[in-house]
Amino acid sequence: MTQLLDASTKGVYTISATPFTDAGDIDWKSVDSLIEFYLQCGVHGLTILGMMGEAQKLGDEESAALTRHYLRRVDGRVPVIVGVSNPGTTNLVKLGKIAMDAGACGVMIAPLNGLKTESQIIAYFGDVIARLGDKIPVVYQDYPQSTQADISAQSVLKIVDTHSSVVMFKHEDCPGLKKLSQLRDACNGTTRRYISILVGNGGLYVPQELHRGADGIMTGFAYPEMLVSVCALFQAGRSDQAEDLFDVYLPLIRHEQQPGFGLAVRKEILRRRGAIQSAAVRPPGPKLDANDIAELDRLLARLEARLNRDVDGRRLAVA
Amino acid sequence: MTQLLDASTKGVYTISATPFTDAGDIDWKSVDSLIEFYLQCGVHGLTILGMMGEAQKLGDEESAALTRHYLRRVDGRVPVIVGVSNPGTTNLVKLGKIAMDAGACGVMIAPLNGLKTESQIIAYFGDVIARLGDKIPVVYQDYPQSTQADISAQSVLKIVDTHSSVVMFKHEDCPGLKKLSQLRDACNGTTRRYISILVGNGGLYVPQELHRGADGIMTGFAYPEMLVSVCALFQAGRSDQAEDLFDVYLPLIRHEQQPGFGLAVRKEILRRRGAIQSAAVRPPGPKLDANDIAELDRLLARLEARLNRDVDGRRLAVA
Amino acid sequence: MTQLLDASTKGVYTISATPFTDAGDIDWKSVDSLIEFYLQCGVHGLTILGMMGEAQKLGDEESAALTRHYLRRVDGRVPVIVGVSNPGTTNLVKLGKIAMDAGACGVMIAPLNGLKTESQIIAYFGDVIARLGDKIPVVYQDYPQSTQADISAQSVLKIVDTHSSVVMFKHEDCPGLKKLSQLRDACNGTTRRYISILVGNGGLYVPQELHRGADGIMTGFAYPEMLVSVCALFQAGRSDQAEDLFDVYLPLIRHEQQPGFGLAVRKEILRRRGAIQSAAVRPPGPKLDANDIAELDRLLARLEARLNRDVDGRRLAVA
Amino acid sequence: MTQLLDASTKGVYTISATPFTDAGDIDWKSVDSLIEFYLQCGVHGLTILGMMGEAQKLGDEESAALTRHYLRRVDGRVPVIVGVSNPGTTNLVKLGKIAMDAGACGVMIAPLNGLKTESQIIAYFGDVIARLGDKIPVVYQDYPQSTQADISAQSVLKIVDTHSSVVMFKHEDCPGLKKLSQLRDACNGTTRRYISILVGNGGLYVPQELHRGADGIMTGFAYPEMLVSVCALFQAGRSDQAEDLFDVYLPLIRHEQQPGFGLAVRKEILRRRGAIQSAAVRPPGPKLDANDIAELDRLLARLEARLNRDVDGRRLAVA
Repeated sequence: MTQLLDASTKGVYTISATPFTDAGDIDWKSVDSLIEFYLQCGVHGLTILGMMGEAQKLGDEESAALTRHYLRRVDGRVPVIVGVSNPGTTNLVKLGKIAMDAGACGVMIAPLNGLKTESQIIAYFGDVIARLGDKIPVVYQDYPQSTQADISAQSVLKIVDTHSSVVMFKHEDCPGLKKLSQLRDACNGTTRRYISILVGNGGLYVPQELHRGADGIMTGFAYPEMLVSVCALFQAGRSDQAEDLFDVYLPLIRHEQQPGFGLAVRKEILRRRGAIQSAAVRPPGPKLDANDIAELDRLLARLEARLNRDVDGRRLAVA
Repeated sequence: MTQLLDASTKGVYTISATPFTDAGDIDWKSVDSLIEFYLQCGVHGLTILGMMGEAQKLGDEESAALTRHYLRRVDGRVPVIVGVSNPGTTNLVKLGKIAMDAGACGVMIAPLNGLKTESQIIAYFGDVIARLGDKIPVVYQDYPQSTQADISAQSVLKIVDTHSSVVMFKHEDCPGLKKLSQLRDACNGTTRRYISILVGNGGLYVPQELHRGADGIMTGFAYPEMLVSVCALFQAGRSDQAEDLFDVYLPLIRHEQQPGFGLAVRKEILRRRGAIQSAAVRPPGPKLDANDIAELDRLLARLEARLNRDVDGRRLAVA
Repeated sequence: MTQLLDASTKGVYTISATPFTDAGDIDWKSVDSLIEFYLQCGVHGLTILGMMGEAQKLGDEESAALTRHYLRRVDGRVPVIVGVSNPGTTNLVKLGKIAMDAGACGVMIAPLNGLKTESQIIAYFGDVIARLGDKIPVVYQDYPQSTQADISAQSVLKIVDTHSSVVMFKHEDCPGLKKLSQLRDACNGTTRRYISILVGNGGLYVPQELHRGADGIMTGFAYPEMLVSVCALFQAGRSDQAEDLFDVYLPLIRHEQQPGFGLAVRKEILRRRGAIQSAAVRPPGPKLDANDIAELDRLLARLEARLNRDVDGRRLAVA
Repeated sequence: MTQLLDASTKGVYTISATPFTDAGDIDWKSVDSLIEFYLQCGVHGLTILGMMGEAQKLGDEESAALTRHYLRRVDGRVPVIVGVSNPGTTNLVKLGKIAMDAGACGVMIAPLNGLKTESQIIAYFGDVIARLGDKIPVVYQDYPQSTQADISAQSVLKIVDTHSSVVMFKHEDCPGLKKLSQLRDACNGTTRRYISILVGNGGLYVPQELHRGADGIMTGFAYPEMLVSVCALFQAGRSDQAEDLFDVYLPLIRHEQQPGFGLAVRKEILRRRGAIQSAAVRPPGPKLDANDIAELDRLLARLEARLNRDVDGRRLAVA
């Protein structure tokens, strides 16, 4: 039986890319190899059909088929969260049930694009969860840069207090460090129930966020093994060493985190690392030109040199 | 064989609602009765799967099924345009081909939500039309209040000059009267090929727009027969009489045109007029409360009284 | 001594234009004639330095000089509200004090452009009122179409409950009728203190808003005498007659209410009515071209004909 | 006589903070010490009244007084650009002339907040430059994250081709590297006149941008001496060494670059470095709480340790 997501979740949940062939179809073989790649990186969980997974460019049947295939292939080795955000609640609920039936540990939902007030967001989650049922664990995805639906810590707490099924908060507002601290302080397990907080934003502020009490990381950065090490070092109390390691990758993290464009960079790196066959992004989507490729070559060469120098040179011992 | 949409199109193309049962399923019987209602109103064409048709809340299969059913039922009595806008170009093209195979006269496409520059919009249409093929007639839907993708007359002209399949411009920028005049002057059939311009915005500026050279109206206003009469009177050179008639309905037009909320009002009026069985809107969507209903009752009673007084009293002779 | 604004305020507070010479300077003689024009229309109050007053295009000294001149000239005949919204709180407070010293009855403040959550808006008003002092009557201007700062009824109530100096709500969210009803029901003078609600949105929904309990109208429509009559008829219980009169002007109201563009139309009408010398709008701002002028001519001729026919013909007796 | 800004400009133009006392007044003594601080860092020029300078929170007289004081104090030691963006063109031009009279080398202008199409932006610059005169050197500030006014490379080129006074492009669109390359390729001094391109975005992509042909950096990062070194190393052909140095500061650059929040961080660092007396930001504005301070302490301690280790340890030789 599938383990359901709960508030004790920690670690790295990588947001999975959706591999396509150059012709634009889902590349099922690459889905399989990508799963193995992520698992070899040591991730604690996976999230599919996020924005980085190009979910909004998949058809309903593709989404359902990918969900079922992915979960069958992962086969319980790690928990899998499925993003189900949809302009229509009917379709959101439909995919949510398909996902849970296929063995997902929970669903991730962002507030509807264009909700204008916090009251509207609270009402929206109330309506969605009423239709979804309160047994399905829900991740609140807070990514206002994309949804335009901003929420304060106080209103997140109202949702947490009303809906016991909301067990995780995916933090990627920016600037958002203050909100993260407010939520961590409020949902401390004593004065209010604990919730898991995983951080996104391409990982750009991971050390700061872990210091502020985040439980882990949910992003699509193409070197998940580094994030796994950073989390482990933090948990072991070696936060300076964790941040040293993180900083080695920071030039690339910053590069990948460019909104929109970053997706093409990530897929290209995953391709170079052998995780997928083609770096194709479904249209409309970014493409790398010769300048972009040369720039990426340079960044990756610098990363490698730095890893050789610092990590092999024992300055940075990966956990 | 289906007649394809071309630049000579004139008249009223009503944007069709999508009727649902109270349980939220497509109400196929109401689809049929709604079609007959529209045809009895004398509309010159129909547009399905527009925003007012709640297209974004339908699943792929529902969209395809509705398209096929609708076209079979209309059975060539008037041309039908199908809205195919989609975050993913693959799905856009797929639905476009389904629509044309089913007998649609053309497709309507809005620029992708969030395109930020006119150059990006031009490139987007270039890419979409390349994939769609240049044989499928395209309506450019200019509704920046919803898409956030603003375009100037100059850039519309670039698209018109590049893509001969773009034969119609659905005007609903607001304020947009100046842009309408610019396009009409430029696409005059002499210095540049003519394109058909139909106007939306809930019909709020119809007399002004017809004076500026619009060829017709594409909106979901719940009294399409009035719009048909207004167009006919205008074409007959009786523009003052047309505007007199329009002004009788203006209080209701203004009321229906409230973004978002108006959809619920329209469906309620369609229900009262016997066109559909239920006024249900799929969630997330507006609902009418007791105040809203009382307000609508008052507006409709005033409309009826006014029609009895002015129209029956011969002040306004409908064509 | 100046009468301060309080929650019992009713009637029509016209938002004053700021007259400029063709060269772009404040036209002081037209300021004087405009004041007399408004007063002859029977308005109950005036609001200066609103968005329609091009406040954001005036320099600090111009704003201060206009405020002082205007108040001296009105000389207590009606109360005057001064818009003091400003990106910097220091300047907001400075102008607020200048206004009150010059005899204003209160200040109008919109939430800072770009505040993203209701919590931020509440905090912003808390900070502003703390600096302004709690003796200065405040009008909350709710115009999210311009400020992008959306607020729910619940959060307005928090501001009302916290700050006794907030005595008026300027309603111009759209669609916003439901919010208006919520606020009216909540601030009913029994379970919570009463606040005055004046409505804007160019007056587009005045009859509906008065039915829902609005206390009056604050907009810049160029025929304030009609709004005065509509309010009087409503208060006299003759709401149908009020709406008949309103509907006569509705084609023009709708035309003036086009965001941005409407300002140029209003100034042109004020010029034609002899209230100001030049219709000049400071750049950047809209200008009327030949099409716009012809369109306006037609609308005004139709209005005049309609008034002759219906009002003189006794169908519409103005109070 | 003042040297005017021209297209050959290279190097680091720091965007100056505006120092305030804790009470919120301009702190003139700190203005003086801040100027000396920047000059000792070796900057090639300065920009005042940018967004980081809290320009929109200054009154007109304060802006004028600060401009005159600043220029008198710099006294020609480096060129000074003055940001003059303003919702009203009259005030924009007025400040522009004050600035040039006081000895500025040019003015920086962002497109008006909320211009919706590239055509509108082009028209806006046409109008502004017509009023400003074509003798005043203009920097186009491309910061759509704040202005919401997006422009493509093609439209920037139209402005460059029309207005010879536009000699510099301040690049801070994000993602914007492709646009930077397009502009650099187009304005190459051969097929089209050269323009200077300085980059902003808090400096987050400086090495990538210099590789793509940027001429320098215009940002408010609190360690300008590093940016000076990076530019010098790049110009000397030692780009790897430049990037090594940059990467040491990258954790802090990333931290400062958080929109809005970063201003408070920068002022706090400037205070710690002795450049200004108080880190006060005028309201509305961010404040650092205890978590923020502890976080900054940690980041600065890590920076210092890293500099001691790598730079003193000869791995990174600053030019």
